[in-house]
Amino acid sequence: MTNEELLVAVALSAWKTNLERADKLFTNLSAGELLKEVAPGKNRLIYLWGHLTAVHDRMLPLLGFGERLCPEFDPVFISNPDRATAELPSAEKIKSAWEKVNAGLGLGFERLSAADWLKKHASVSAEDFAKEPLRNRFAILLSRTNHLSYHLGQAVLAAK
Amino acid sequence: MTNEELLVAVALSAWKTNLERADKLFTNLSAGELLKEVAPGKNRLIYLWGHLTAVHDRMLPLLGFGERLCPEFDPVFISNPDRATAELPSAEKIKSAWEKVNAGLGLGFERLSAADWLKKHASVSAEDFAKEPLRNRFAILLSRTNHLSYHLGQAVLAAK
Repeated sequence: MTNEELLVAVALSAWKTNLERADKLFTNLSAGELLKEVAPGKNRLIYLWGHLTAVHDRMLPLLGFGERLCPEFDPVFISNPDRATAELPSAEKIKSAWEKVNAGLGLGFERLSAADWLKKHASVSAEDFAKEPLRNRFAILLSRTNHLSYHLGQAVLAAK
Repeated sequence: MTNEELLVAVALSAWKTNLERADKLFTNLSAGELLKEVAPGKNRLIYLWGHLTAVHDRMLPLLGFGERLCPEFDPVFISNPDRATAELPSAEKIKSAWEKVNAGLGLGFERLSAADWLKKHASVSAEDFAKEPLRNRFAILLSRTNHLSYHLGQAVLAAK
């Protein structure tokens, strides 16, 4: 592997490690357990799971992998806080979306060369990217891994 | 910048962003607020701050930057859970250690070339590293950024 490829491989490994932790945590919970709050008055586990799914789904067009798979999750899990929506999608529906979205990301990741990771992502204009070359796809991978880790830290408080 | 340098720059930017968030969160809390738990029966904010400081301090020898600055934090903040030690170091002492440790890391980071980041860290043998080249310094940077993000997600639950 070249140096570039090694650096990308480390980052993909970190994504995978965190994703596996989240997968193990959420998919082993019952529908009842998913209603637990991470702290009094804070988000419920089911909300965090849906939120992570929606944020990962947004990565598909952002990284140029294709259309979104569950845009209907946004009003429930991104634009609004937990408990703002009367009825959340079922745990089964979230699980299915979570699996499809992450599988789609995994396929997309495999196809990118190290140089591809340094190309701009879809939410930055060519003009801005010329001035700010760190706003690339690799930055999305790292920030979304951190985002996953951030909510994992919260989820374990309720799930243990 | 070369591709290697760009990839490293993105990762250093992610570290810095998370560190600044943590710095802002912890240093603005009073000694009383630092005693709040992130969730009932879970770690107190002061413990998380000391824990992050100790883990970052360990990065100094791990990345070849030099001796540790506060090894006395380990029995309190790493080997033992919160409340196992009768008296924690004061908030002032943690703040001072936190600042020195992170400044030391910042200086060390500046001195590493992109190729240096791919060298082995101090906790892996040359034999193992030959077989597992992803156990490099870059992996430490990413995993510690994720670790910081993980505990930040917890800390905001109490600090808000």
